[in-house]
Amino acid sequence: MSSKIVMDNLKLDKHISKKFNEDLEDIKTAMLAMGGLVEKQLEDSIASVINADSKLAEHIISTENKIDEMEKDIDETCITLIARRQPAATDLRLVMAVSKTIRDLERIGDEAQKIAKMAIKLTEEGHPRGYQEVRHIGSCVRKMLRDCLDAFSRFDADSAISTMLQDEQVDKDYRTAIRETITFMMEDPRSISRSMNVLWVLKSLERVGDHAKNICEQVVYLVQGRDIDKLNDFAIYEIVF
Amino acid sequence: MSSKIVMDNLKLDKHISKKFNEDLEDIKTAMLAMGGLVEKQLEDSIASVINADSKLAEHIISTENKIDEMEKDIDETCITLIARRQPAATDLRLVMAVSKTIRDLERIGDEAQKIAKMAIKLTEEGHPRGYQEVRHIGSCVRKMLRDCLDAFSRFDADSAISTMLQDEQVDKDYRTAIRETITFMMEDPRSISRSMNVLWVLKSLERVGDHAKNICEQVVYLVQGRDIDKLNDFAIYEIVF
Repeated sequence: MSSKIVMDNLKLDKHISKKFNEDLEDIKTAMLAMGGLVEKQLEDSIASVINADSKLAEHIISTENKIDEMEKDIDETCITLIARRQPAATDLRLVMAVSKTIRDLERIGDEAQKIAKMAIKLTEEGHPRGYQEVRHIGSCVRKMLRDCLDAFSRFDADSAISTMLQDEQVDKDYRTAIRETITFMMEDPRSISRSMNVLWVLKSLERVGDHAKNICEQVVYLVQGRDIDKLNDFAIYEIVF
Repeated sequence: MSSKIVMDNLKLDKHISKKFNEDLEDIKTAMLAMGGLVEKQLEDSIASVINADSKLAEHIISTENKIDEMEKDIDETCITLIARRQPAATDLRLVMAVSKTIRDLERIGDEAQKIAKMAIKLTEEGHPRGYQEVRHIGSCVRKMLRDCLDAFSRFDADSAISTMLQDEQVDKDYRTAIRETITFMMEDPRSISRSMNVLWVLKSLERVGDHAKNICEQVVYLVQGRDIDKLNDFAIYEIVF
């Protein structure tokens, strides 16, 4: 089944209440705003490593709570929306997908925090090798994050699938970077401690890719969900009983 | 507010339908069954490292899909339950908590897979140092996982909070283990490649602790949720409008 066809189905739930449409739109907008902030945190955390900018890193660390609070607020809104409006079928699926996506966004925020902490250590310890890999993989996962949020905002399963495929390249590049860093550590054991910090940064970036992939899965599930038919059955069930 | 008091509130939603109670009980049971399987995977993955048992590791890797399938099935059941029964307040909160908890369980299963893959590499490469740390931290996070599932099954927020606190010790022990392994790598650079695999195992175990902590948060949120009152307001809202 083409996702383009199913995409049209996604707009299908007609609501008696105009307010309901607005509520649904609001949680999506709030999620994308949270996504924007997380994108910024990730961008800054990578920059703080590459530019050895511990001031920027400290700024990222100081804003840790903001993303957590956004996640909690949006999650509360999702639950109260379900309780108030009792959405069925696709609307319910959208609320559930938002509820899961913000969890992945919050985890990406956590990884940005970890990267910022490593940036401070790296700045203290001088410049080790491996920033080129951080720059390259960082740029790939930033693109993945931007693309997955974009796919969500447009309910575009095709785009979500092609974004998911980017993760394979990220994993491949990550493994190469790890191998190279280990070789370097073996050649120059004095660099081990510093290189380990670069490895943790790379590990965090790789996880950002995983979370972006999870968000893509939510978009595909939302648009092409295997149980759309099942939910429609339940809509009938509700009328019968 | 004591969690013991709120715990009683958790049983408060009275359902006209006996079937609804059974449905809610069923998803909880399914989640705990999934938890049991994940516990076993984690136990086996740690054993496969410690005993250099690549056969056991391969068995764990071959069962990867089972946990993923369980997560999808339970998640579908949660969504269809919300669509069919339109639970309000605490019931809805329970379904949402299950939906999130199975995601953390699935991630713990992923970490067990990664540990099993490292076990195979470690078996090929001979015995490096660091198994004592794997044994110790492995035992701590296994306890955390068991305790958090137990807290969920009894809706015991006090127990969930004390389980969350265990994560601090795990993080402390993890950092010590990492430091010791890096020191060892510096002393014997030939061990770097093998020691890195132990580090990845330790990293996976530390993440298991994080996921168990997330599950504890769900239990606390379920029992002491800050928006129980808000949801009650919405119950009134529904009557008024």
